[in-house]
Amino acid sequence: MKTLKIKASSHEYNVTIGHGIRFRVQELLERSYSSIMIITDEVIESLYLDDIKNTFSDHKMYTYILPSGEAEKSIDNYYKIQTKAIEYGLDRDSLFIALGGGVVGDITGFVAATYMRGIDFIQIPTTVLAHDSSVGGKVAINHELSKNMIGAFYPPKAVIYDIDTLKTLSDAELRSGYAEIIKEAFISDHHFLNELLEINLNDLTSEQLSEHLYKGIKIKADIVEADEKESNVRKYLNLGHTLSHAIESELGYGTITHGEAVAIGIIFALNLSEAKYDTILPVKAYIDWLKINNYPLNISTIKTENILKRMKSDKKSVNQVVQMVLLKDIAQPSIENLSDEFIMEYLTSFLKELKEL
Amino acid sequence: MKTLKIKASSHEYNVTIGHGIRFRVQELLERSYSSIMIITDEVIESLYLDDIKNTFSDHKMYTYILPSGEAEKSIDNYYKIQTKAIEYGLDRDSLFIALGGGVVGDITGFVAATYMRGIDFIQIPTTVLAHDSSVGGKVAINHELSKNMIGAFYPPKAVIYDIDTLKTLSDAELRSGYAEIIKEAFISDHHFLNELLEINLNDLTSEQLSEHLYKGIKIKADIVEADEKESNVRKYLNLGHTLSHAIESELGYGTITHGEAVAIGIIFALNLSEAKYDTILPVKAYIDWLKINNYPLNISTIKTENILKRMKSDKKSVNQVVQMVLLKDIAQPSIENLSDEFIMEYLTSFLKELKEL
Repeated sequence: MKTLKIKASSHEYNVTIGHGIRFRVQELLERSYSSIMIITDEVIESLYLDDIKNTFSDHKMYTYILPSGEAEKSIDNYYKIQTKAIEYGLDRDSLFIALGGGVVGDITGFVAATYMRGIDFIQIPTTVLAHDSSVGGKVAINHELSKNMIGAFYPPKAVIYDIDTLKTLSDAELRSGYAEIIKEAFISDHHFLNELLEINLNDLTSEQLSEHLYKGIKIKADIVEADEKESNVRKYLNLGHTLSHAIESELGYGTITHGEAVAIGIIFALNLSEAKYDTILPVKAYIDWLKINNYPLNISTIKTENILKRMKSDKKSVNQVVQMVLLKDIAQPSIENLSDEFIMEYLTSFLKELKEL
Repeated sequence: MKTLKIKASSHEYNVTIGHGIRFRVQELLERSYSSIMIITDEVIESLYLDDIKNTFSDHKMYTYILPSGEAEKSIDNYYKIQTKAIEYGLDRDSLFIALGGGVVGDITGFVAATYMRGIDFIQIPTTVLAHDSSVGGKVAINHELSKNMIGAFYPPKAVIYDIDTLKTLSDAELRSGYAEIIKEAFISDHHFLNELLEINLNDLTSEQLSEHLYKGIKIKADIVEADEKESNVRKYLNLGHTLSHAIESELGYGTITHGEAVAIGIIFALNLSEAKYDTILPVKAYIDWLKINNYPLNISTIKTENILKRMKSDKKSVNQVVQMVLLKDIAQPSIENLSDEFIMEYLTSFLKELKEL
C-alpha cells in the first residue's frame, strides 16, 4: 500500500493505492458521518458495491445507480441525485462516495460541491483513467454544447485506489487510462516516457500498473499543488485535450473513449510542436506504440471546420482564440495561443494522414 | 459614498454604497474583461439596465432577462443562463453582473461559481433585502423540495449599491429588507435595535436608509469574515430563518416575501428563547413595530406538522434534529438543537396566536 499526500488550498488529503483496499474504506477515513450515499454505475454496482457497503458498520447507507457512459454526466442526473439526497435526509455531516470511473467521480464531486453549498466526498476510482480525474479537485458535468462546462474546484477528502478493481477493465478502458499516463510522462518525465513506450498493454503486470499509476498521480499532484485553479502550469495537463474535446463532442460522447481521443490529440499537439518550434519529437515511436496497442486512429467522418469551431469554444480559449499545450521538447510544455490559420493549415492534413495510419 | 472592505478567504472585495453610483460601475471595477453578461429581471430591466450598460465602453455586452420572483431561482433558469453564456462565447476572462434583488444575485452568483468552474461576478443590488444576500458569498438556486439547497460559497468581486435604485421599491419589498436589518440588530447591537424599533418605514429618509444599510452590512461583514463557511458564528445570521424557510416553502415561494417570513420567524425564535432561557425579550415592542409597518402576520392556512417536517429537513439540521438560533439576550445569540416535542409545544400555540395579532 502506497500513500501520496495532496495539499489542496482548502485541506490536505491522501491518495492511497493498494491491493484489496476497497475492503478497508472505513478505516481509511478520518472520521465518521451522519449518513453516506454511494454513487456508482450499473456495471460497478454488480462488481464492487457490496464490498464497499460492507466495510461500514453503524452508518446509514444509501446508493444511487447511474447508467454507464459519458452521456450520464448530465444536468438531469445531477438534479436527480440531489433530489434523492434530500429525500434520504443527507445533511451537512453526510458523505458522498464516488465509486467508479471518471463520469461517476465528476458528477458525484459536483453534487458534493453544491449540495447544501458543499459537503464531504471521497473517490474510489475503478478505472485507470480515473487516476487523473480523481486527483486535483476538478469536478463537473457536461453541458450539451460543451464538455465539463459546468463545475467547480472541489477536492475530495480521500482517494482510495484498489488496484484489484482494475482487473475487470476492457482493453478500450485500459487504453483510455494509459493515454493520460503517457500524457503525464510527455509533459514532465523523459525517462518515464521511454519506459511506457516499451510497454505492450496486453502483457502488463499488476506491479507495473501500480507503479505507473503512482508515477502518473505523483506528476499530477505536483502540478496541482503548484497551481490548483489552473492559472498557469496546471494547463500543461491539457496536452492533447483541446483537440480531444472537440473530437469527442463532434463524434458524440462515448463513440471512442476519452483517453483514446486524447491519444489522437497528443499526435496533433506533437505535429504542431514540431512545426512551431522546429524541434524533433518521438512522433513515430508514439504512433507505433498507439498502433501496437490498438488505439483507434480513424476518425475520418468528422469535418475540419466543425473541429476548429469546437476548439475555439474550449474552456481554455479567451476571445475565441484557441489555446493549446505544445512541447518545446519532452518535459518542456508551453502554452500557446494559435491563430485559426495556423491550426487549419495543419489540421486538414493531419485528419487526412490519420486515415492512412 | 461609503466603502466597506470584506475579506473573503479567496480574495478581498469592496462594498460601495452611494447615490447614483450605478452610473460609475466601470470605474469601480479593478480590471477590464473580455466580455460581460448582465443578468437581471424584467422589472429592473426597464428601470436600470441601460444605466449599467452605458457605463461600459469597449466591452462586448450581453444581457439575460429573468421573469421576476423566487420561483425563477430554478435549475431550469440556471441551465438556460449557462446555455446563453456558452452561445455568446463567454470565457474565463468574462464577467457576470447580477443586477437586481436576491433572486438575481443568488442565481447569477451560482452560475458564475460553476461556469467553466468559476469566473468573476459582481453584485449590483436593487433591493434593501439584497444587502444581506449580496455580501458574504452565499450563492444558490432552489430545489423544488427545499430552498437554496443547491449552491456554493463564492464571493463577488465587488458589490455596488446605488441607494437611488431603492426609491422604486414597493412597501412589501421595503418590509422584506428591513426584517433582515432588524435581525442583524437583534443578534449584535442593542442600540441599533432600539433605533430601528422607533422607525416608521413610511417616513424613512434616504439618509436613514443609507445608514441602516451600512450598519447592517457591517454587522454581516464582521460575522462572515470570522466564519465564512458557516461552521459557527455565521449561523447566528439564521435567526428567524428556520421557521421562515418552512413557511415560505409551505405557502409556496412568493406568497409572502422572504423578509416578511423571516419577521414571523423571529417572533417564534423570541418566544422559544424566553421559554428556554427564562429571559425577557422585547417581544411586544417588536410585534407592535411589525404591526405599525403592516407586516403580514396571518399565515393561518398552514399545518403545524408540515412546518415541523420542513424545519427538520432544513440545511442546518443534522440527523433530522432541528437547529435554531435563539437569543439569551439582545446581541447574545446561541445555537440550539431542539427536540421535536419542545418545538411542537410552542409551535401550535404560536400559530394560533398569530391569527389573533
